[in-house]
Amino acid sequence: MPTPSILAFDVFGTVVDWHGSIVREVQALYPQIDADAFATAWRAGYQPAMQRVRSGELGWTLIDDLHRMVLDGLLPRFGLSHLGEDERDHLNRVWHRLDPWPDTVAGLVRLKTRHTLCTLSNGNIGLLTNMAKRAGLPWDCVLSAEVFRAYKPDPRTYLGVAGVFRVAPAQVMLVAAHQDDLAAARACGLATAYVERPLEFGAGRPKDVSPDAANTWHARDFLHLAELLGC
Amino acid sequence: MPTPSILAFDVFGTVVDWHGSIVREVQALYPQIDADAFATAWRAGYQPAMQRVRSGELGWTLIDDLHRMVLDGLLPRFGLSHLGEDERDHLNRVWHRLDPWPDTVAGLVRLKTRHTLCTLSNGNIGLLTNMAKRAGLPWDCVLSAEVFRAYKPDPRTYLGVAGVFRVAPAQVMLVAAHQDDLAAARACGLATAYVERPLEFGAGRPKDVSPDAANTWHARDFLHLAELLGC
Repeated sequence: MPTPSILAFDVFGTVVDWHGSIVREVQALYPQIDADAFATAWRAGYQPAMQRVRSGELGWTLIDDLHRMVLDGLLPRFGLSHLGEDERDHLNRVWHRLDPWPDTVAGLVRLKTRHTLCTLSNGNIGLLTNMAKRAGLPWDCVLSAEVFRAYKPDPRTYLGVAGVFRVAPAQVMLVAAHQDDLAAARACGLATAYVERPLEFGAGRPKDVSPDAANTWHARDFLHLAELLGC
Repeated sequence: MPTPSILAFDVFGTVVDWHGSIVREVQALYPQIDADAFATAWRAGYQPAMQRVRSGELGWTLIDDLHRMVLDGLLPRFGLSHLGEDERDHLNRVWHRLDPWPDTVAGLVRLKTRHTLCTLSNGNIGLLTNMAKRAGLPWDCVLSAEVFRAYKPDPRTYLGVAGVFRVAPAQVMLVAAHQDDLAAARACGLATAYVERPLEFGAGRPKDVSPDAANTWHARDFLHLAELLGC
């Protein structure tokens, strides 16, 4: 089977280190709080917030707004109820300022020589574009749940990438550090590449990164993926 | 007034030379026909085809499909009725292979140092991404009528860019070689930069490139625009 021409990347955790980036910013801004617990709690609110959109309880809502709803609910628990609008908005935009993993940019540059690289993230287009510009992520195209008005794992997102490029689903490969995302993509006919990100939740919470034979590829990082794909 | 942080570019005619590119490909593939007349006739079908979508006569239809409808209607007039599906599809994708103007890439690279650069084209995302990858156009983000499900000059397209980046319309500047596009953007509150592309319709049909004082800027080309914006 030929390697898919389009590589679609999950972003939070796969391309960028959300936990480490948030811990660093929060430690610098609010040294009095437990930044590790704060980052973990913020991210823990992410899936339930999207679920409110998926279920129809909330109308279509961008991730920037979902992040903010979770943040507003979180601040009292960490003694930060006094933060004003500007401080909350600045903190919320930390998701636009996440740092890439050490291999990310070099790996993408190699993969880009032979593939079209796009994001396929639940993050909104503005967030992903600001992140890419700051971190030097060389996307050919920024695709997002915002384009398809559906959140992963809705099939409209995975099939939407194939539709944008007018190729069969098997010509698209999802690259992600999350087996559930990959399984949903596979069910739509996409190829899948798992990338180990053992520190996604911080050094204190090592992640199970064992292979699932159902994936097309299993890579340690993006440089290893480039090697596997002959880039 | 500060320069807008987001520059949104019209593409066909402004960034790439559709007329010259189509003439070159058609001359090489079908030397027996009048390539200049063919390119001109193909493009002349573009606005009427989009108008059928705008009016609701056609449901939402991507530019790839509109180009193909116009092409299929055109081939008999040029003695090319015998072309098969593969040849028609290859020819139709010439719009993915348009060459940039000589100043385009160098100008965008300079502008990118201080601005976020996105497309705002009626072309579909796949077309714009393939074009950018081939021509080396360094977009931060590919935006298209496809994202907003409306064709320029619909206000949803211009205001959609501001919405994606969550900025006021005045923080976005449309860069285009067409005064009607710029006038529609201005009516939505965007800043506007006109770029002269005197050869858009070929050397035989020089275009009026006189300034309109209503635009924020008037530039000879993208390098001149970079100079005007201090990049």
